Amino acid sequence: MTDAAADLVERISAFIRETVIPYEGDARIGKHGPSDDLRIELQAKARAAGLLSPHVGREFGGHGLNHRQIAQAFRAAGYSLLGPVALNIMAPDEGNMAMLEKVASEAQKERFLRPLASGAVRSAFLMTEPDGGAGSDPSMMQTTAVQDGNHWVINGRKTFITGADGAGFGIIMARTETGATMFLADMGGDDIRIDRVLDTIDRTMPGGHAMMTLENVRVPADQILGEIGQGFKYAQVRLAPARLTHCMRWWGAAKRAHDTAVEYATHRMAFGKPLIDHEGVGFMLADNEIDLKQAELMIDWCAGVLDVHGHGAGTEESSFAKVAVSEALFRIADRCVQVLGGLGVTDDTPVHQIFRDIRAFRIYDGPSEVHRWSIAKRIKKRALAGA
Amino acid sequence: MTDAAADLVERISAFIRETVIPYEGDARIGKHGPSDDLRIELQAKARAAGLLSPHVGREFGGHGLNHRQIAQAFRAAGYSLLGPVALNIMAPDEGNMAMLEKVASEAQKERFLRPLASGAVRSAFLMTEPDGGAGSDPSMMQTTAVQDGNHWVINGRKTFITGADGAGFGIIMARTETGATMFLADMGGDDIRIDRVLDTIDRTMPGGHAMMTLENVRVPADQILGEIGQGFKYAQVRLAPARLTHCMRWWGAAKRAHDTAVEYATHRMAFGKPLIDHEGVGFMLADNEIDLKQAELMIDWCAGVLDVHGHGAGTEESSFAKVAVSEALFRIADRCVQVLGGLGVTDDTPVHQIFRDIRAFRIYDGPSEVHRWSIAKRIKKRALAGA
Amino acid sequence: MTDAAADLVERISAFIRETVIPYEGDARIGKHGPSDDLRIELQAKARAAGLLSPHVGREFGGHGLNHRQIAQAFRAAGYSLLGPVALNIMAPDEGNMAMLEKVASEAQKERFLRPLASGAVRSAFLMTEPDGGAGSDPSMMQTTAVQDGNHWVINGRKTFITGADGAGFGIIMARTETGATMFLADMGGDDIRIDRVLDTIDRTMPGGHAMMTLENVRVPADQILGEIGQGFKYAQVRLAPARLTHCMRWWGAAKRAHDTAVEYATHRMAFGKPLIDHEGVGFMLADNEIDLKQAELMIDWCAGVLDVHGHGAGTEESSFAKVAVSEALFRIADRCVQVLGGLGVTDDTPVHQIFRDIRAFRIYDGPSEVHRWSIAKRIKKRALAGA
Amino acid sequence: MTDAAADLVERISAFIRETVIPYEGDARIGKHGPSDDLRIELQAKARAAGLLSPHVGREFGGHGLNHRQIAQAFRAAGYSLLGPVALNIMAPDEGNMAMLEKVASEAQKERFLRPLASGAVRSAFLMTEPDGGAGSDPSMMQTTAVQDGNHWVINGRKTFITGADGAGFGIIMARTETGATMFLADMGGDDIRIDRVLDTIDRTMPGGHAMMTLENVRVPADQILGEIGQGFKYAQVRLAPARLTHCMRWWGAAKRAHDTAVEYATHRMAFGKPLIDHEGVGFMLADNEIDLKQAELMIDWCAGVLDVHGHGAGTEESSFAKVAVSEALFRIADRCVQVLGGLGVTDDTPVHQIFRDIRAFRIYDGPSEVHRWSIAKRIKKRALAGA
Repeated sequence: MTDAAADLVERISAFIRETVIPYEGDARIGKHGPSDDLRIELQAKARAAGLLSPHVGREFGGHGLNHRQIAQAFRAAGYSLLGPVALNIMAPDEGNMAMLEKVASEAQKERFLRPLASGAVRSAFLMTEPDGGAGSDPSMMQTTAVQDGNHWVINGRKTFITGADGAGFGIIMARTETGATMFLADMGGDDIRIDRVLDTIDRTMPGGHAMMTLENVRVPADQILGEIGQGFKYAQVRLAPARLTHCMRWWGAAKRAHDTAVEYATHRMAFGKPLIDHEGVGFMLADNEIDLKQAELMIDWCAGVLDVHGHGAGTEESSFAKVAVSEALFRIADRCVQVLGGLGVTDDTPVHQIFRDIRAFRIYDGPSEVHRWSIAKRIKKRALAGA
Repeated sequence: MTDAAADLVERISAFIRETVIPYEGDARIGKHGPSDDLRIELQAKARAAGLLSPHVGREFGGHGLNHRQIAQAFRAAGYSLLGPVALNIMAPDEGNMAMLEKVASEAQKERFLRPLASGAVRSAFLMTEPDGGAGSDPSMMQTTAVQDGNHWVINGRKTFITGADGAGFGIIMARTETGATMFLADMGGDDIRIDRVLDTIDRTMPGGHAMMTLENVRVPADQILGEIGQGFKYAQVRLAPARLTHCMRWWGAAKRAHDTAVEYATHRMAFGKPLIDHEGVGFMLADNEIDLKQAELMIDWCAGVLDVHGHGAGTEESSFAKVAVSEALFRIADRCVQVLGGLGVTDDTPVHQIFRDIRAFRIYDGPSEVHRWSIAKRIKKRALAGA
Repeated sequence: MTDAAADLVERISAFIRETVIPYEGDARIGKHGPSDDLRIELQAKARAAGLLSPHVGREFGGHGLNHRQIAQAFRAAGYSLLGPVALNIMAPDEGNMAMLEKVASEAQKERFLRPLASGAVRSAFLMTEPDGGAGSDPSMMQTTAVQDGNHWVINGRKTFITGADGAGFGIIMARTETGATMFLADMGGDDIRIDRVLDTIDRTMPGGHAMMTLENVRVPADQILGEIGQGFKYAQVRLAPARLTHCMRWWGAAKRAHDTAVEYATHRMAFGKPLIDHEGVGFMLADNEIDLKQAELMIDWCAGVLDVHGHGAGTEESSFAKVAVSEALFRIADRCVQVLGGLGVTDDTPVHQIFRDIRAFRIYDGPSEVHRWSIAKRIKKRALAGA
Repeated sequence: MTDAAADLVERISAFIRETVIPYEGDARIGKHGPSDDLRIELQAKARAAGLLSPHVGREFGGHGLNHRQIAQAFRAAGYSLLGPVALNIMAPDEGNMAMLEKVASEAQKERFLRPLASGAVRSAFLMTEPDGGAGSDPSMMQTTAVQDGNHWVINGRKTFITGADGAGFGIIMARTETGATMFLADMGGDDIRIDRVLDTIDRTMPGGHAMMTLENVRVPADQILGEIGQGFKYAQVRLAPARLTHCMRWWGAAKRAHDTAVEYATHRMAFGKPLIDHEGVGFMLADNEIDLKQAELMIDWCAGVLDVHGHGAGTEESSFAKVAVSEALFRIADRCVQVLGGLGVTDDTPVHQIFRDIRAFRIYDGPSEVHRWSIAKRIKKRALAGA
């Protein structure tokens, strides 16, 4: 890391500790995440500290970090579940920014990326559908886009759309004659309707997760993102880094849970000695540190692959990372609950919510089973090629 | 099982399915569990069906079931998280009823047990303290009771007191000169103060879990439960069966989660075939069935020990059961979330809440680590005795 | 259990302890199991003690035990890896005896079962083939039997045939026009050829496991076992109980490993206290006891199903038992190695060989994966039937 | 890596594949490892290929690799269990060479290191004692060295001394007045007696593991290694890298097991399709690749720490690596056995022996429990320092 990047990470850590963590009990955090009001307040402070959207290019106000630097920065930010919101690096906005930087036209960047990067609006990524369409199995997508003069008309249903409630615009994946295509669409009107916001185990993503109906959504042709029919290719470009930034942010959360458990176990007495002196507890904390280190190494390795090989690379590596990191972080969070005992299942420490969020993370961006399935397919292909 | 008991279990199953499950989305279920209003409504229906408090003796309106029959009945009741509330067999009331039946004087039974068994009041069990007192390590208890003429005056702090908010009376464990003693005390006054109700991962126990202050609580001497100084002995009498009824109720919940996952996996398509035809999913469901069977066998074995050996027996056996069953049920719940994918982390199925409740169960009545610790001590003692 | 059965189990335990265990270091135990010489010597002592072949009917010298009694007896016998050989209840002989009792004609019983039950000869079960035939996937069987007058002529290759080296006769599974058929055939001639005996991780089954070639094996028609074309049906009759007796015998071995580890951990000092006082060790031993209890309950439950429902029952139940018990016993054996440290990977205690044998057990009679697969198929069938 | 180092690794891989693997069925591999005759034959070929003792400095015939280069080279060498013997990088010789390079006097290097590095002799490291002395708990060491003029006289017992049978010299750890001290002693005489060689689960280390008696071993004062009383300090210098080279070598073995399982699963049919197309198998192979990658990253990270921080560093990091890598490699080996089914528990593939060796590895150089214990102590110390 350059000195500048190391300094940035240090500043993020201090900002989280001193500025963000005090907001954690804020009443504006509801079951569908922090309110927009709270988000704006936090982001104003991050902007003042020069820490807003650190990953995007300098022309959009960021620091133009590479993936390995992003890993350091996002892990530091994730130390509070509010950190990624404060720094404007929460999903899906962060992944949307990254994709727009790579794929959008200059005009699209000005219209959509700039306000997103500045925190003026939030965004959504409308891909997953009920009945399995475009979720783990993208071949089942049913939303369609039909050309009508200089516009496209989109109809369909989407589900589990993170951040849709309150988003300024969305990137819609729809089936066109030549394949899946991505469209940039303003949100807030009656055509992109939020049927309901789901009540979920996690509660840190602004806007929560929505079920939606798209009814005759008219999008001008110049709001096609990239080329027609290339939607799944761009989704892949978005997917590998987006999976990995999930790993990074929740790594920070798991570290926080661990530090909380260590602090408790060092001072709480049981049966005549500090909890940590009981091997049953100390061993769990030792395993946490090993898991944290392994997850960190896995993230950095995959980030390095993305840095070296660029767009579209890292599909298999990010599958490795998603499985290994999400499962390791869940083990950590689960152990921390266990170490805290009764306290661990209450909101009196951040561990309870971290446990819940990381349980959801094991599903988001593909459950381990889907990744193992695709890794096995690649193993077979390589074995047959080598034969 | 007798025919009568088998019939009772069948009626409970039908009642849960037809009467209780439709209430599951009721708005009166808040983050601290179902409201008293909802509880009363459900219990009225159970009373009408002859299913209220089935475990207590016939003189208190129940069916006088033995532990093995209780196992069948409670597993059936647990199939809805509302079931135990509806049947008045939820913790801590159920354990309190069982202990009062065994330990209370006739006058105490009339005054406290009868209204509890009939659903007229709820109760609490005030044992656990902040800073570890009387939790996993009972030697650290700090609440005291001092005699003052024909009364005792109790002072102290209690935490994680389930159902305290709204309870009609409580059983308070306090330190007296000759050892720990249990007192029956009316609640609702200013002397037994609820400082706050904790926000916890579970949300099915009426009244939630409270932190409390006991300030000059005056209890007449005839409200001592059992003998002075025998509190921990009675706590043991309560503990083994209470641990086991937790296992039973949550077994039912895990079975519900499994049935939900099986239903989903049988009909939901992915990559061209039903989910269950993917071994990655089918194997999880197979493991669920094996775990359910093992947990059932463990419960029935321990219940049999309690039936044969009576009061105070089953301490080690219930430790075995608590560890094995709570961990098995959590694996099941976790797999069910995984099978359901995104749906699994929402409130659209009961699985999400079952997962959360069972995570708490792994802590309640002693985390696995404490049980393993006490089992190891017994192994050592036996090994040295055999030498 | 009847008093007689309980007494028998007690006598078996004493016989193992006093008579069999002293043979454990005998030089006649080679890498392919105990020599026939040693087997005969051990069985003579069991015969004298009235303990030989206790499971078979009284008319063949046994005690006519039901499955639940067998469970008690075999667990006791398994306490030494030599115990099942001594009592003549080792695979495949024990399973062959059970099948012959159920399926063979009276003449066949006299000719084959009687000498087998008396320990005069050993036997083999020739089913599994190289290239997967009649192993986990029986549809792939390639060995054929063709009628030639009053004889049948069998050709094919078999693999992993336990006990073939030195067996007096074998039960051969072969494909006939109307389906798979079982044949009783004398062994020892050139037509049933042992190509080689495999070097395997286990070393307690007399004769080891052989790869074999069957070349023009002529079997008289009256040595067909049961009816033509019913081979797989009989294999199922054999399979469920045979799987379960594996569980029983190795349960005894795991108990032995555990007792060895407990003894060591109670007396060996490390860092100033006995190993067992280290939670890292004590917890492993506690988990062992829980696993042993669960495995015992699972075995008894499945045995009860076989007792109540008879021939051909228990397929799914024995799949449950095989998966749960074999995995539990392996966890136990692995923990025992770990508790013993360096000593655990040497032949200085029986734990090393128990660990190796139980690793093999996880494969024998179907790896867990095949059982999970078939359990999942049944779950699906039931779910669809219930819909 | 430099080009030269990358080239070396490639040459090692080719040498293993083409030259070493064909020796794997050699009859000179007994239960106590390959014979000295076989070792000499293999090392002659490695010497001819310029690959002998690649880790030691150029002045002793090696390539002077740093730890990260060693990681690459040793993983490649471990691909055959005979590879480390062939390249003269097997424990304990490799660790002894590394320590002698750092600690020995010039004269000692000529006398002991040079013939060891050239393959002329083997060596042993006599530290562990029966009854726990100098094993996991070094404070219990009972072997003593007493000065007698210009000599020291050593008495005591040692156990689990790898490679002692046939070693030319040994490094003996003994208690002196000012602390533990290391002595270089010629072996082969009556004073350093091999009581017996243990029969162990592994069988790849030449000479196996011996129990020994040291009786009046007279060592001249100039054969003290390093300074008097500094034995444990040097043991630490030896320990961290030695643990890590274990990880490296067995990583190669696990990779071999995985490749064997992949090859089998790709071509073996079951239930109508290749095994690998069954998710139950494919997922195991996917988990193998994830575990291999994580283990590789952990090794490289720890090697990097050793490269940067030098002698005596890496104690905690190598504890992390030992736990994570040994447990990961065992999971891999266990899955490979499972994928291979019956074949997996025979000597027909290298997987069986790899499984056995890696089970032993989980004990060697400290079982996971000892490492977790020391990690927990460090966590506590840091937590208290931070408070």
